[in-house]
Amino acid sequence: MTAKNFLYAQSGGVTPVINASAAGIMHTARQYPELGAVYAARNGIIGVLREELFDTTSMLDEQVMALRHTPGGTFGSCRYKLKGVAESRAEYERLIEVFKAHDIGIFFYNGGGDSADTAFKISQMGTQLGFPIQCIGVPKTIDNDLPITDVCPGFPTVAKYVAIATMEASLDVMSMSASSTKVFILEVMGRHAGWIAAAAGLAQRQSGDAPQLILFPEISFDQPAFLQRVQRSVTEHGYCTVVVSEGVRDDTGKFLSDSGVRDAFGHAQLGGVAPRIAALIKGELGHKCHWAVADYLQRSARHIASRVDVEQAWAVGRAAVEFAAAGESGVMPVIERVSSKPYQWRIAKAQLSAMANQEKLMPRTFIDASGFAITQACRDYLAPLIAGEDYPPYRDDGLPDYLRPGQCPLLPQKLAKWTKTE
Amino acid sequence: MTAKNFLYAQSGGVTPVINASAAGIMHTARQYPELGAVYAARNGIIGVLREELFDTTSMLDEQVMALRHTPGGTFGSCRYKLKGVAESRAEYERLIEVFKAHDIGIFFYNGGGDSADTAFKISQMGTQLGFPIQCIGVPKTIDNDLPITDVCPGFPTVAKYVAIATMEASLDVMSMSASSTKVFILEVMGRHAGWIAAAAGLAQRQSGDAPQLILFPEISFDQPAFLQRVQRSVTEHGYCTVVVSEGVRDDTGKFLSDSGVRDAFGHAQLGGVAPRIAALIKGELGHKCHWAVADYLQRSARHIASRVDVEQAWAVGRAAVEFAAAGESGVMPVIERVSSKPYQWRIAKAQLSAMANQEKLMPRTFIDASGFAITQACRDYLAPLIAGEDYPPYRDDGLPDYLRPGQCPLLPQKLAKWTKTE
Repeated sequence: MTAKNFLYAQSGGVTPVINASAAGIMHTARQYPELGAVYAARNGIIGVLREELFDTTSMLDEQVMALRHTPGGTFGSCRYKLKGVAESRAEYERLIEVFKAHDIGIFFYNGGGDSADTAFKISQMGTQLGFPIQCIGVPKTIDNDLPITDVCPGFPTVAKYVAIATMEASLDVMSMSASSTKVFILEVMGRHAGWIAAAAGLAQRQSGDAPQLILFPEISFDQPAFLQRVQRSVTEHGYCTVVVSEGVRDDTGKFLSDSGVRDAFGHAQLGGVAPRIAALIKGELGHKCHWAVADYLQRSARHIASRVDVEQAWAVGRAAVEFAAAGESGVMPVIERVSSKPYQWRIAKAQLSAMANQEKLMPRTFIDASGFAITQACRDYLAPLIAGEDYPPYRDDGLPDYLRPGQCPLLPQKLAKWTKTE
Repeated sequence: MTAKNFLYAQSGGVTPVINASAAGIMHTARQYPELGAVYAARNGIIGVLREELFDTTSMLDEQVMALRHTPGGTFGSCRYKLKGVAESRAEYERLIEVFKAHDIGIFFYNGGGDSADTAFKISQMGTQLGFPIQCIGVPKTIDNDLPITDVCPGFPTVAKYVAIATMEASLDVMSMSASSTKVFILEVMGRHAGWIAAAAGLAQRQSGDAPQLILFPEISFDQPAFLQRVQRSVTEHGYCTVVVSEGVRDDTGKFLSDSGVRDAFGHAQLGGVAPRIAALIKGELGHKCHWAVADYLQRSARHIASRVDVEQAWAVGRAAVEFAAAGESGVMPVIERVSSKPYQWRIAKAQLSAMANQEKLMPRTFIDASGFAITQACRDYLAPLIAGEDYPPYRDDGLPDYLRPGQCPLLPQKLAKWTKTE
């Protein structure tokens, strides 16, 4: 019997280190000559349905290693959630058909909670359809909201980026505040969980340091208390830095960013809670504000990656191959914290069924009584995650030497075109 | 006769490397034991008027060197433009009074065109009032709009940051575009001159690479042509990255960011051309967009400084002291480009009178015929400026070891309180 091949797919929003997990998988699989080839789906699960599979065997070892320091999802990701087997049986059958056609015995799905659910269903479906497939989940999400794992690969780099950006921009506004801008507002990602906003709190080395206020999605926006504290910071320190999660809501549960206003073109205004907070402060307190929205910049900032994050992203990739080689299925390698001081971690094994469709919010004990700052417990959790740097190499042109997408050919297709979905 | 002291002041918007110029001045002055002490005004020229002067002689050599890698303006800057001598005679007289009181013979003013003008006026005023003062300008501005100098310290780091951010975020949107976000919009600074937006063009290593479109303040916004090109990029590449200068205007000269809309709080919406472009694309083409506003993040991103920039910022500080030691006044050290390939530069000397109140816009030859991209001439000018990295040291907490403001005491005041202005 020939060795079965591996299929790797990226899912959902990408991270600065999702490719490091891909590299960990590819590099490790190459150490097992008795195993098959590694294929990678183009644009995630959509590429499997469409039978668009990259043959990564033609990638040079140095290209695989370059993946380790390249942000984005090099093979393409997708936002496409498979429903339950009952509703979407044809899709599951198509996946199995593609696996069969290319002799794929192991499927690695690199994603969050939805992907764990999908991978779990595929692992069961395969057995039912007489083509047993090993499904291994590989964790990633900047939202840090997966259960069981101590941390989600991708989050620590975003955390480091946000903490550094907060520290740097605060030095800027501090310089200007005597005669100009007094308040700086940084909007960060986190629709439901405030992990990323919390990470900005790491910039505060001493009491009174920026950020003076953090707005979490877990805490309803208390406008009077907020404005009072902004004013207090300006009075005491001369300036105020506010870090706001995109997901912050008022006490009726409505997103602050959902203003309902239309712009000059007559189009509904898209997102952006930072400009709203700036307008509020300017209007109520009269202070000049500057605001930034980090958006994708935070999610792709591989140039300032956390070394811990890169190592963990690589390690979950490597462990996925090792689990596969040991015959495992329906599992996901996760990060287990052994100790915080000194920081020690190891890979553990979780069941996909337990990872699926759960969202880990910040514990209330990680936000202080005021609702505007993190606690020491939160700091103890977050601090080790951003330790160490892992700079990408640079070219002579002054820019990182990131791997360009499109380094390997697609496998010849063997099946009829998939027309069912989309 | 005792040696005269130096007074250093920061002016206008700070840069990621303005402190490197301060460090260059302080370090160099310490090499001339025959010269006096270096004082630094708190919050720029306002601090001189208020007689709030830091005595930097107590700073340790390693603290001076830490300034070299610390963003923001450690001594405080200000937005405060002195008018002409006729209108503001009392202010000029107060400055001279403060110089006299602290035996200051040399004034270093680290700023842009306005500051060159002020320094020039002070240099003349001192002679008239019988207290000759040597005034030396030290260039800085992220806007890169000073005349004569080939480049303004501060700009190259912003350029490097913007080029890297564009490259990274484009890898992200490229990954997502098959099933989700198709357009990414990055808003950068540059109210009048498009230098910063142009720098994003360096991310384009090959034809077709991001950014596919740049919107410059020098070119009126052509909405139909813009939308057509966005759609073409989405069709050809699957995605589109747009970099937009905050100063882009319509054909009536009105800023696109000036929408006139009011938000849910009833306050006028502050700035933000990126969300407006996103709403336009979503409304007219139907594509899902993400947008980021870099604001202070770009201006304080010392963590990814251009090595060339740090060296030049230090060098203009050093040269300022050397000019002063040689008895010069009314001058500014500037950067002269000797060659682009290989990149060679040296310090030259410009007259402050020639630097004052002029704004160097991008040459039209730096923007291509379409109005949406840079030319090879622009690339040849910009490319060498972002070469090399100059990472700050990091602490164990995973954050840069930036110098905290407030490392030296204020000099005891000798004069009556200044009450005239503000």
